[in-house]
Amino acid sequence: MRRRKFLTTAGIGGAASTLAAPAIAQSMPELKWRLTSSFPKSLDTLYGAAESIAKKVAGLTDNKFQIRVFAPGEIVPALQALDAVQNNTVEMCHTASYYFVGKDLTMGFDSGVPFGLTARQQNAWMSMGGGLQLMREFMADYNAVPFPAGNTGCQMGGWFRKEIKTLDDLKGLKMRIPGIGGQIWAKLGAVPQQIAGGDIYPALERGAIDGAEWVGPYDDEKLGFYKVAPFYYYPGFWEAGTQITLMVGKQHWDALPAAYKLAVETVCGDVNGEMMARYDNLNPQALRRLVAAGTQLKPYPRDVLAAAWKATHELYDEFSSKNAKFKKIYDHWKAFRDEQFLWFRVAELTYENFAFTANQTVK
Amino acid sequence: MRRRKFLTTAGIGGAASTLAAPAIAQSMPELKWRLTSSFPKSLDTLYGAAESIAKKVAGLTDNKFQIRVFAPGEIVPALQALDAVQNNTVEMCHTASYYFVGKDLTMGFDSGVPFGLTARQQNAWMSMGGGLQLMREFMADYNAVPFPAGNTGCQMGGWFRKEIKTLDDLKGLKMRIPGIGGQIWAKLGAVPQQIAGGDIYPALERGAIDGAEWVGPYDDEKLGFYKVAPFYYYPGFWEAGTQITLMVGKQHWDALPAAYKLAVETVCGDVNGEMMARYDNLNPQALRRLVAAGTQLKPYPRDVLAAAWKATHELYDEFSSKNAKFKKIYDHWKAFRDEQFLWFRVAELTYENFAFTANQTVK
Repeated sequence: MRRRKFLTTAGIGGAASTLAAPAIAQSMPELKWRLTSSFPKSLDTLYGAAESIAKKVAGLTDNKFQIRVFAPGEIVPALQALDAVQNNTVEMCHTASYYFVGKDLTMGFDSGVPFGLTARQQNAWMSMGGGLQLMREFMADYNAVPFPAGNTGCQMGGWFRKEIKTLDDLKGLKMRIPGIGGQIWAKLGAVPQQIAGGDIYPALERGAIDGAEWVGPYDDEKLGFYKVAPFYYYPGFWEAGTQITLMVGKQHWDALPAAYKLAVETVCGDVNGEMMARYDNLNPQALRRLVAAGTQLKPYPRDVLAAAWKATHELYDEFSSKNAKFKKIYDHWKAFRDEQFLWFRVAELTYENFAFTANQTVK
Repeated sequence: MRRRKFLTTAGIGGAASTLAAPAIAQSMPELKWRLTSSFPKSLDTLYGAAESIAKKVAGLTDNKFQIRVFAPGEIVPALQALDAVQNNTVEMCHTASYYFVGKDLTMGFDSGVPFGLTARQQNAWMSMGGGLQLMREFMADYNAVPFPAGNTGCQMGGWFRKEIKTLDDLKGLKMRIPGIGGQIWAKLGAVPQQIAGGDIYPALERGAIDGAEWVGPYDDEKLGFYKVAPFYYYPGFWEAGTQITLMVGKQHWDALPAAYKLAVETVCGDVNGEMMARYDNLNPQALRRLVAAGTQLKPYPRDVLAAAWKATHELYDEFSSKNAKFKKIYDHWKAFRDEQFLWFRVAELTYENFAFTANQTVK
């Protein structure tokens, strides 16, 4: 993959600068990589980001570094994206790391864990606070090099057939919610269900489940939940700023020329913001349509949030006592989170609380 | 600048693929551009971002597209950055567009105006909501093509020698605050002062001014205001998410090869998030040091915020009645802002209000 192209180099050297030309030839090998996405093609926000990565990397490398994006099922199923990277079936995947908490709960910190960082705070932890380095050390065991490459922002808290007025209403509730979020709901008395995206609607329609969470207004609208579950709760306290991650197989990454590495890093940084901006632009429009179609927007009762906060941190203590890898990153992450939460209460939150309501409250 | 290098092209064509090789040569001319920054070298957050842009663009173009960054005064003073682009003295500048509201108040929307969009909302408006296109049309008259390339987040509200307990305390107060923010403070009874960054400290020390705003904890700490003005107010309601902008001279931009255009765009998208992450990581650490040094952290009284909200929108109506360019962008921006404010009250703000205080309030 890093073979010197002697013929080409010699050819250029004969006509152009002998210093610059060999560098071009060496640094621009032709690569054709495969990327498996964990997201269905119908979600232009999530699946579309991988296509955006591929297009930009090609554009920056004179089309020499080509990445072909595959939807779930075309090479491997959605939730085998990391396995496909680890086993060298593909060179890269675009996924949410919390899909893999079954391998190790520590995976959760890469995408975000319950009562975690907002999108901006996750970016700060990853790129400046040491988070990315910790995640890379951890994921080396999986042969994967992760790059933040998208964020959904704070997600919604899910769709329900009946109103939730108090914590007691969660008892026995069958709620579609995977991962650590599901474990928290279990501690609150609910019965978490693991159901793939495409199967949620029929289960909700026939009452096999009472509620389901997915992402936010724009993505949720496409799956049609509002037609069968009128109560739309917020916030998704288990997904405060869910990061989407590009993972590259370690041996492929290590062998990339420096210019291609920089292209991947820069493009991921760009697409990370691009996805967030796309969600922020589309979600309010979708929410208007959902409310116009009869959706009832409700905040979770405070006793639900308070019980969930306690349950979450009890779980983290439990995980930490059993899993040294989890504890190492949790301790670092929690110290960072607590400082971020304090700081964001100052200028940002004070501004938002005043300004976001001022149209209604200042006369 | 787009001259075909026939010799080089022919040389490569002889040895490598006749399809790919000429494309490389054509698309990678050697360019040496000059960028003038509006920010002092001492601010690694702001000045450092331009250096990051230069480094990444060079890395993506095999060092063929070189941008040299100049500090204010090395080519032109800080506030003549746009003039230098317009007059073709430099190819690009890195600046905050609200420095140029003296040319036209419409400039403000590019960096952010009082009671404006947060960093995330500004990104959404720019890249997905149509804002960038509007700003490019407007700035074409100044020969400049703008790119969002950094954000400070919500700034702090400034340093004061005395406590502000009520709106009445603003009467006659000499406050260092430039631009539209200054016009709002004037409507509230204060006497806004225009003072360059380096001159603020001595003016504040000797009592020539009563207060001064700058950026936020990390940048403010460097200028030492805490030593002479103990009261540190929040939020900077006139700077909710100040965007920093790369401006490229239009004829230079138009002549760039597509791959170089993509490099500039992608790098700006990446650095836009990088600067925000750097601030979010550094500000809480600086705030801790400031508070340890005796700084008293205070929210602006609600009557100040409410009066400022009213004064701000009165000013916007006044500007709109006099300036058709301002009105065109204001109407678009305000419709977008109001929808964003409503949407962010749902999941994000509810989450933040609960989670950011839960360490203290949930027992």
